[in-house]
Amino acid sequence: MGNEKVMLIGSGTSPFVFRVEWALKLKGVEYEYVEENLLINKSPLLLKYNPVHKKIPVLVHAGKSISESLVILEYIEETWKQNPILPEDPFERAMARFWAKFVDEKFMEALKQALFLEGEQQEKEVKKAIEAIEILEGELQGKEKFFGGETIGFMDIVLGCVPAWLEVVEEVAGIKLFDSQKFPSFNKWMENFVETPIIKEKLPSRDKLVFYLQKIRQIKLASLTAK
Amino acid sequence: MGNEKVMLIGSGTSPFVFRVEWALKLKGVEYEYVEENLLINKSPLLLKYNPVHKKIPVLVHAGKSISESLVILEYIEETWKQNPILPEDPFERAMARFWAKFVDEKFMEALKQALFLEGEQQEKEVKKAIEAIEILEGELQGKEKFFGGETIGFMDIVLGCVPAWLEVVEEVAGIKLFDSQKFPSFNKWMENFVETPIIKEKLPSRDKLVFYLQKIRQIKLASLTAK
Repeated sequence: MGNEKVMLIGSGTSPFVFRVEWALKLKGVEYEYVEENLLINKSPLLLKYNPVHKKIPVLVHAGKSISESLVILEYIEETWKQNPILPEDPFERAMARFWAKFVDEKFMEALKQALFLEGEQQEKEVKKAIEAIEILEGELQGKEKFFGGETIGFMDIVLGCVPAWLEVVEEVAGIKLFDSQKFPSFNKWMENFVETPIIKEKLPSRDKLVFYLQKIRQIKLASLTAK
Repeated sequence: MGNEKVMLIGSGTSPFVFRVEWALKLKGVEYEYVEENLLINKSPLLLKYNPVHKKIPVLVHAGKSISESLVILEYIEETWKQNPILPEDPFERAMARFWAKFVDEKFMEALKQALFLEGEQQEKEVKKAIEAIEILEGELQGKEKFFGGETIGFMDIVLGCVPAWLEVVEEVAGIKLFDSQKFPSFNKWMENFVETPIIKEKLPSRDKLVFYLQKIRQIKLASLTAK
């Protein structure tokens, strides 16, 4: 199974896609990458392989497709067992899954909404995102380099969107979320994360990110005004 | 580890709590059950063991607490390996996780909103819930008794809220979601599910459910009107 062809349908601007790429690279899995242009109609390939949500990332392995980044990460971990990203202990595994879910539901969602809204509604989402950062700061206090210890794991990969994306979201949406003085443990974690060779080699282009986030913010704001 | 004390903080009206109870019973794990009254202030026990979300269910095992029903199910599967609820094959496991996430994000969320809203907003949520049922109907077509075959597994447990709760939500919210003629595969699955001895022995009391859902619908509608 592990030697069958691997294809990833993604976008160079999606933090969810980077999660999958980092995990594949950590495992040393070779894959074909197919870029989906998110600013035009969804491609026939995407519609074929993710008919339910029609969203990236989609991992296609041995002709079978899997979507949802957290589901894909678990699949990668179970299919290619080298360089594990989840700990062995069931309780520690539960904690990694708990915090990953927290990041998606409480942090990423607020970040997305903050990017797509304005005024009071935006302020509400900014508040939610900062509350999530505060909770994660508490969780990171006293940790070694990463969530699970000395090496990058599941939860670091899931939170890995922060270092490159956060600053661009702040710039494009005209908001302030992160303060390195207020969140020193989080800040230290970010530094450790982006200094890791495999991550450093695979981070989004800042220009591309600014261009894309500006574009989708404009589109979303226009559609809200039109309602 | 498997022999340490197990405690579950739950509520006899929460479908998320029943997921955990069914999994524990399928595995033959004995546990102490502590009822959380959802209509009064949160208990010190709940605040102690789930300080982040302050929500049930919470599983406490060997003094350590885990919350979020899907995370708890994975923990139960990894800690007590008898009567597995997830298949062995990584792709099949990914499918179970994908559909579980789908149920929570697309179906349960719409169901909750439909219960808490009125008028046009409610209609929107009803439409979303029916769309989710249609997709699940397609997924269940041609299956044996359950999602994963002849025995109850992860995805059946996750969707297990439907048989008892759906009808009560329809009654309390004054809406129609399910049509056994339109969704014959889903209907057959429901029949198989509630006929399984372990499930049959552990279903919510209809009266209690009607009382509780009426109560929280009143509270939510009042808080929306007050805004």
